[in-house]
Amino acid sequence: MSERFDAVDIIRTKRDRQVLSTEQIDWVIDAYTRGVVAEEQMSALAMAIFLNGMNQDEISTWTQAMINSGETMDFSSLSRPTADKHSTGGVGDKITLPLAPLVASYGVAVPQLSGRGLGHTGGTLDKLEAIPGWRANLSNEEIMHQLETVGAVICAAGSGLAPADKKLYALRDITSTVEAIPLIASSIMSKKIAEGTGSLVLDVKVGSGAFMKDIDQARELAETMVRIGKNAGTATVALLTDMSVPLGRKIGNGLEVEESVEVLAGGGPADVVELTVALAREMLLAAGVDVDPAENLANGKAMDCWRDMIRAQDGDPDAPMPAAKHTETVVAETDGVVSEMDALKVGVASWRLGAGRARKEDPVQAGAGITIHAHLGEQVKAGEPILTLHTDDDYRFERAREALEGGITISTVAPTRESVLLDRIG
Amino acid sequence: MSERFDAVDIIRTKRDRQVLSTEQIDWVIDAYTRGVVAEEQMSALAMAIFLNGMNQDEISTWTQAMINSGETMDFSSLSRPTADKHSTGGVGDKITLPLAPLVASYGVAVPQLSGRGLGHTGGTLDKLEAIPGWRANLSNEEIMHQLETVGAVICAAGSGLAPADKKLYALRDITSTVEAIPLIASSIMSKKIAEGTGSLVLDVKVGSGAFMKDIDQARELAETMVRIGKNAGTATVALLTDMSVPLGRKIGNGLEVEESVEVLAGGGPADVVELTVALAREMLLAAGVDVDPAENLANGKAMDCWRDMIRAQDGDPDAPMPAAKHTETVVAETDGVVSEMDALKVGVASWRLGAGRARKEDPVQAGAGITIHAHLGEQVKAGEPILTLHTDDDYRFERAREALEGGITISTVAPTRESVLLDRIG
Repeated sequence: MSERFDAVDIIRTKRDRQVLSTEQIDWVIDAYTRGVVAEEQMSALAMAIFLNGMNQDEISTWTQAMINSGETMDFSSLSRPTADKHSTGGVGDKITLPLAPLVASYGVAVPQLSGRGLGHTGGTLDKLEAIPGWRANLSNEEIMHQLETVGAVICAAGSGLAPADKKLYALRDITSTVEAIPLIASSIMSKKIAEGTGSLVLDVKVGSGAFMKDIDQARELAETMVRIGKNAGTATVALLTDMSVPLGRKIGNGLEVEESVEVLAGGGPADVVELTVALAREMLLAAGVDVDPAENLANGKAMDCWRDMIRAQDGDPDAPMPAAKHTETVVAETDGVVSEMDALKVGVASWRLGAGRARKEDPVQAGAGITIHAHLGEQVKAGEPILTLHTDDDYRFERAREALEGGITISTVAPTRESVLLDRIG
Repeated sequence: MSERFDAVDIIRTKRDRQVLSTEQIDWVIDAYTRGVVAEEQMSALAMAIFLNGMNQDEISTWTQAMINSGETMDFSSLSRPTADKHSTGGVGDKITLPLAPLVASYGVAVPQLSGRGLGHTGGTLDKLEAIPGWRANLSNEEIMHQLETVGAVICAAGSGLAPADKKLYALRDITSTVEAIPLIASSIMSKKIAEGTGSLVLDVKVGSGAFMKDIDQARELAETMVRIGKNAGTATVALLTDMSVPLGRKIGNGLEVEESVEVLAGGGPADVVELTVALAREMLLAAGVDVDPAENLANGKAMDCWRDMIRAQDGDPDAPMPAAKHTETVVAETDGVVSEMDALKVGVASWRLGAGRARKEDPVQAGAGITIHAHLGEQVKAGEPILTLHTDDDYRFERAREALEGGITISTVAPTRESVLLDRIG
């Protein structure tokens, strides 16, 4: 069968700074998924998009075409409304873990289809797999049943969602075309919209440990994604949140589960609690529920939902987290106040300790990571511990310490950071 | 063995409008030739170069790296100096045929390694293959012997010259990255410099039938190539010449051989003679020979050399050119003077008649093409022939006539075109 368009013409259109038509975008994504548009053609197009951009209509069309490349999920048969959350990724970002059961505890279903970590930011599934017995892979029937009975599911996204995005993401990774806002926004939103949620809250991280280093870029990404959501009929709100320092005091897989349980028990670090409550409030409002989500953290209802959610996926909510075989302490060299704790450097150190992976097929260590004793703005005396490093392989300490070099500053003036919330787009 | 560089970093460098280092360029071309840099990575880099450009140092380095990807020829053992010519391609451009023997008739060796035609511009080898018996493929020993004895060789370029350029050219063709001056200039010059000539004259065509439609672009391309030649130590001069109308009165393979022989016999159309003599003068000057090349056209010495050259490659210089099986005439609809004869439209018509090919593996017809009876500036009366169309397949006339639509204008005012020579860069 002859093709409606020619990839060479479509590449030329974008190369020459013209607008791609809906028909051109629909065809090129479909033909790329079918293998008719070659990888080398799509990479040239991706570079042309990187350098010449796409307008909002093109981005929305591109997103929809990627959704159309595969299956979509449909939660409309559920008796509850659904709400979903996506974070652009940060260091110590375990928010999904307390957030999903917290929102579900108010009767809103949370289908949280997640991925594994790559690079210095952790993956939600890697974290939950630190819980003995817990399994990430559920059938669609299991997901529906769990949403109806427990209300919250965190599990692996099926491979049938937005296959064009999967192919394109792998290509962008090897062709230096990752960091383009139209391509980032459409990649995130195609997966999230294909997952079929009724509403979506985006946590767009800003700072050294985030993909977006400055707030203007982050705001542009957030605005682009919110408009895609609106155009696709999915109510979408974005919070811009600080990722210049790690979130909370524990970074790593099992360590982040521990801290999430602290939050669900009504405790936990202030920044993790603040962000969990703020995101829960947005998700609940989008689903029509106007409450103060802090209540169900305080009264144990969110914890009950967490325990049900873990058990429903064969995990033992009472099992202690696996401890790493070796620990070392990073101590303060002088007295003073921690005025900088670079999120990227801490994230890379945790990754090198074994909490993350360099390649998709690498294993991760459940116990590896970092605990923070003296966080941003806190006093220390010379010789007191700032961090504890955890790993199963003691040869990893050296490279982790190298990663931390220059990342922690102790000075006489305390920095001010009143909130992790920087802005709201919606 | 580990690689010195990473393609992803090199693509990012050019994507971010930075200058590629000599080491980066050397590596990326070598690694691409070895298959370590993937096609999809090179296409992203080509698009980044297309949109962000390269400076003259980068272009010269890129050219040298493509030369280094394969074999080079060496004519330094010859007893004669060498001179070569390259045309960017045009309609009716048979100049290589009379030019090579003309220059050789003055004792300068002309190693003219040529290609076949693709699209609406003809290929030199296709033209010569209209001569019964003539063969395009010579061994390196045959080339050297013929240069020493006859002085002129027109033959197929070996596949070992600049293999990186061959790979990259095929890639650019399917990724809309052909029309970038740094990539065009380095592609042409890498092949020509690898061919080992002592000096090089470039015929950069401008106009509808040429790759470069406007003179500013053509001048930029010419200047870029001349600087590449200078940087590589190959004396290089460029002439900018008009390609808004077909060159001469005959377009097609055997038809262009006929017209070339007319020129070698001291006749032929004025524009073909003018350009042949101008290019010969440049090639001879570059080789240190200061003469008026028109003399050896008039006295038969260039013709003698032509006959020797054709015979040396098993061709019969006395054989008549094969005639096409069918002809049709295009006649004038009104009285007047031909004020426009669009080179592109005539070129496409000739191609459709069977003189050219759409795909590399297609055959060409020796007799197909177009003869021009009333050329630019010439008077016609209504009903008199303007063109004769030649083909072996009479179904081809219809599409050829469609290609000609709007391409020939007859009016009351004669256009002025005194010379095909527009400018000289060198």
